[in-house]
Amino acid sequence: MAENPHHVVIVGAGFGGLEATRCLARAGVQVTLIDRRNHHLFQPLLYQVATTSLATSEIAWPIRHLLRSRKDVTTLLGTVAGVDAAAKKVLLEDGAAVSYDTLVLATGARHAYFGHDEWEPYAPGLKTLEDATTIRRRLLLAFEQAERETDLQKRRALLTFVIIGAGPTGVELAGTIAELARDTLRGDFRHIDTSQARVVLIEAGERVLAGFVPELSDYARNALERLGVEVELGQPVSQCDADGVIYGDRRLPAKTIIWAAGVAASPAAEWLGAPADRAGRVMVEPDLTAPGHEDIFVVGDTAHVALPDGKLVPGVAPAAKQQGRYAASVIRARLRGDAIPGPFSYRNDGNLATIGKRAAAIDFGWIKLRGRLAWWIWGIAHIYFLIGLRNRLTVALSWLWIYTTGQRSARLITQGGPRKD
Amino acid sequence: MAENPHHVVIVGAGFGGLEATRCLARAGVQVTLIDRRNHHLFQPLLYQVATTSLATSEIAWPIRHLLRSRKDVTTLLGTVAGVDAAAKKVLLEDGAAVSYDTLVLATGARHAYFGHDEWEPYAPGLKTLEDATTIRRRLLLAFEQAERETDLQKRRALLTFVIIGAGPTGVELAGTIAELARDTLRGDFRHIDTSQARVVLIEAGERVLAGFVPELSDYARNALERLGVEVELGQPVSQCDADGVIYGDRRLPAKTIIWAAGVAASPAAEWLGAPADRAGRVMVEPDLTAPGHEDIFVVGDTAHVALPDGKLVPGVAPAAKQQGRYAASVIRARLRGDAIPGPFSYRNDGNLATIGKRAAAIDFGWIKLRGRLAWWIWGIAHIYFLIGLRNRLTVALSWLWIYTTGQRSARLITQGGPRKD
Repeated sequence: MAENPHHVVIVGAGFGGLEATRCLARAGVQVTLIDRRNHHLFQPLLYQVATTSLATSEIAWPIRHLLRSRKDVTTLLGTVAGVDAAAKKVLLEDGAAVSYDTLVLATGARHAYFGHDEWEPYAPGLKTLEDATTIRRRLLLAFEQAERETDLQKRRALLTFVIIGAGPTGVELAGTIAELARDTLRGDFRHIDTSQARVVLIEAGERVLAGFVPELSDYARNALERLGVEVELGQPVSQCDADGVIYGDRRLPAKTIIWAAGVAASPAAEWLGAPADRAGRVMVEPDLTAPGHEDIFVVGDTAHVALPDGKLVPGVAPAAKQQGRYAASVIRARLRGDAIPGPFSYRNDGNLATIGKRAAAIDFGWIKLRGRLAWWIWGIAHIYFLIGLRNRLTVALSWLWIYTTGQRSARLITQGGPRKD
Repeated sequence: MAENPHHVVIVGAGFGGLEATRCLARAGVQVTLIDRRNHHLFQPLLYQVATTSLATSEIAWPIRHLLRSRKDVTTLLGTVAGVDAAAKKVLLEDGAAVSYDTLVLATGARHAYFGHDEWEPYAPGLKTLEDATTIRRRLLLAFEQAERETDLQKRRALLTFVIIGAGPTGVELAGTIAELARDTLRGDFRHIDTSQARVVLIEAGERVLAGFVPELSDYARNALERLGVEVELGQPVSQCDADGVIYGDRRLPAKTIIWAAGVAASPAAEWLGAPADRAGRVMVEPDLTAPGHEDIFVVGDTAHVALPDGKLVPGVAPAAKQQGRYAASVIRARLRGDAIPGPFSYRNDGNLATIGKRAAAIDFGWIKLRGRLAWWIWGIAHIYFLIGLRNRLTVALSWLWIYTTGQRSARLITQGGPRKD
């Protein structure tokens, strides 16, 4: 390595940032990877932590351990507060600054309430491990409180679970909560029949899994209804509060509401003063650089990348990884003086979603799958993409256990207890 | 079962309360088990959660699930605020009251600071899952902050870990933290050498593991020192603050302090207005009832039970279980009109403590063991006492992994992140 190697700073160790880091191995650059968390999170399985199927440590890995053998990479735990693009520095919240030659922003997205941030306390979203343990606590506490509630109407509201948004996360949450109530918890309570719990999936659009082909949407809807989920389509939610939701012209009393309806990008566009879409995503150039900043790449959920048909590249792990890999290839080509690769193009590797522990929908484009076979493919694919042999073993064991016994091992109410909720 | 069966209320689902519940099966009584947490916690392995070896869900089980097949048991999530012994009611914090015919208080203990409660923010103790994740976060953040600290003195304080109290918990924490620094984390950082971290175990008494025979204390001390732990005996701590500790006439700058030095009983004695010792334990009668309340049993860490030699029954899981079993046997005998069993007597099943992942000390009374053989016996015994096949499998897998690779899987900084600490 040269004495003053080119310094690439990557912000965010999600799928995009981590993939960019990996693809810069032996590129003759020095990499600093900054994240405000110490762990990389396998977000596609986060709903399984929220629904007591997996433990937090089964889907999260210390970032610096993943990169321990990469002596060219320095991992930094820190929160980025801004970018000084003129001075080529990343500014951290604690006042420190990190100089870069090339910057890759892979800072992701948070759930968003479309101008109704006041709904957040009543309808938490699912993006971090803490979000997942918060939702887990609320789910389990609702059953506990229902067990002690003698007023029938209040008990009914405690046993009503509303999920807003019927994309893959909403569908997966609804299916698993229905199984939790009907299968896992059955027989544990004395005063309530948990199988009487209502799980209501509310979607503003006309079908569930809108990113899939219509026949898979229909299949998923039927599979949800077989599990006992009530699916309400074409119903925008106009109110969330401590007593429930209002959708269409109806009020539904419910003590547990989960938000799976929308995301907003990280503040990367604000840091750069770059043009952004309504969700805050940076309108990147075809080579994923920020407009006017050819030394700054923006990848993953915080980048607005249009497909030839005008739709956006979806906010899924494979898309973020492809963008991270692409940014790394452009950086390598520039340093070597090679021809710069053509504009980023997205390869759709397929859409996957599970409905409970028996059904799944897979849309590979060239082939559509559903039912048990799809469920097994989904499970094997996710175990394959987990990092490390140990987590593969424990997740496989957890799933085998749930599949055969219906029992979920992570039914813990932590951080709160009965008093705070 | 009779129409109005005798109602036994058990408060606390730790080892004592759960064992009493179990031993009342088919006794013709109705049992209500109240706990403020939804899970039973396997406290002997809590230090392994604090030191990133095990996941929270590997050592905790939902109480109501453990008792799902016991239709005579109602599990209640609730916090007890008092006892109205005249009206025979347990009073809950939310205003509800639960009537009992017989009451078993198994409410345990919390860590205590001997009149220095102001030390708690700087030197957290280890009794709950939240305590364990708090300590885990502090340990991991100290290394992260040291990596970014350029001032050598401050870095030194960040890499100094003080454990106060050299009972089994303190010894086990010190040994595991030393291994974490020297083995698990080695190679993950770029600016610090984690093997240079200091782990200092401070004890007011003259030996470690004072409950064991002196030769095992000597062995444990040597084993700790081989792992690089500095053992300071006969050194009462006179100050804990944000900068470190003062012990003897020395100040030791340290950013991470863990309290393993003392416990105080639950407020059970206050609820009853019963005589208590200095640590708040109820001075129970020989049959474990509270003085003047023959319908109220007090078992486990919240009971003061003297041994024939004047020492106290130790605050360990087997002692609590024996007391729970004994209370159940007295209740059964009373209801049947059988002869009441003689006074409670404690059978010492042995003291166990591990030092890292290669050594342990076991004092069975009739035989003393140490070294690798003791470590294997310790491990097998703990897996045996875990509840359920699934947790036995996952804990065994976790340990096998740590044993062979040195890697610990639960290295997560959650609930806080870099900003709050």
